[in-house]
Amino acid sequence: MSHPELDVLIRAMSRLPGLGPRSARRAVIHLLKHRDTQLGPLIEAMTRVSSALSPCPICHNMDTRSPCSICTDPRRNLRQLCVVEDIADLWALERAQNFRGKFHVLGGTLSAMDGVQPDDLNISTLVGRVRKGETDEVIIALSATVEGQTTAHYVADQLAGFDVSVTGLAHGVPLGGELDYLDDGTLTQAMKARRPLNERT
Amino acid sequence: MSHPELDVLIRAMSRLPGLGPRSARRAVIHLLKHRDTQLGPLIEAMTRVSSALSPCPICHNMDTRSPCSICTDPRRNLRQLCVVEDIADLWALERAQNFRGKFHVLGGTLSAMDGVQPDDLNISTLVGRVRKGETDEVIIALSATVEGQTTAHYVADQLAGFDVSVTGLAHGVPLGGELDYLDDGTLTQAMKARRPLNERT
Repeated sequence: MSHPELDVLIRAMSRLPGLGPRSARRAVIHLLKHRDTQLGPLIEAMTRVSSALSPCPICHNMDTRSPCSICTDPRRNLRQLCVVEDIADLWALERAQNFRGKFHVLGGTLSAMDGVQPDDLNISTLVGRVRKGETDEVIIALSATVEGQTTAHYVADQLAGFDVSVTGLAHGVPLGGELDYLDDGTLTQAMKARRPLNERT
Repeated sequence: MSHPELDVLIRAMSRLPGLGPRSARRAVIHLLKHRDTQLGPLIEAMTRVSSALSPCPICHNMDTRSPCSICTDPRRNLRQLCVVEDIADLWALERAQNFRGKFHVLGGTLSAMDGVQPDDLNISTLVGRVRKGETDEVIIALSATVEGQTTAHYVADQLAGFDVSVTGLAHGVPLGGELDYLDDGTLTQAMKARRPLNERT
């Protein structure tokens, strides 16, 4: 016996990743308990995000301006294009402050299981950008999962006819990673791609 | 490098129970991806809950009417008062469709660790209701945790001077529960409170 209004909210919350029906209910009760300090601000923050941000027509990043601030930044290298799965990955790479080219957000990875087809991803706009001939290198920065790598190969195939080099992120031991805890696949990749420590080149 | 609007939303989301900063970010990205189908409806559901529901001045339940529909229901037994921690517990008991008295929502449990004092809970309004003399029995239905039982004893103490019987929920083996998986405390309680199977009374 709760209320229709609450049921609707609990159902909407339970569709968020990481929340099931039970934890959604707990979250809603928490919001009800802290109506002024949390529910109000949350509604306001969501409304602001919903009205302020829109997808960039060029790279599919989310921004308050359109095209986004990365696409319109003249100091960024137009000739390098980094392909990411979603904006969280774009943010992660931006936090690392190391890549100064442009981005392209696919919006997901191919997945037979979840029914994600190439047409569901922003692949045709990527091909369109490369076709313009302004790009030297496409860096495919997708997760080292089955879906990520399948998608990476599919994207690479789509770009095969263009005069552009397609690269992927290096695999290996993460910084701070203990060998003991790494999976065999990563260790094999790290061994294969081993590098000289005394640079003799 | 995300946006101030997004940072505010991620921070607001991460204050929900069950969501940390990382899962809050994932939830926000999910909402951005499904702006029309999920973010919009979620804002609407929250706004509706925020404007439609208010705490009942008598029992502290949340309802669209004030006093709430349980407090104003003439078919419910005024003489039994069930004390619960929060409205989720009230809902759970209502779902069981077995208790037909009135409720009183404490709004939490005493906790030295979280700094929850008696004044932070709806105890004085409970004492006020009992003082009116309309109550025969107060059923304290709090969790079988240290905080829950501490609170139960505190509440029972506050009601000691009134002509009212104070009871607690029975402890024992939950329906469908396998003995093998039960903790010793529950088993001990279940054994102590054992009941005749052939009703000879």
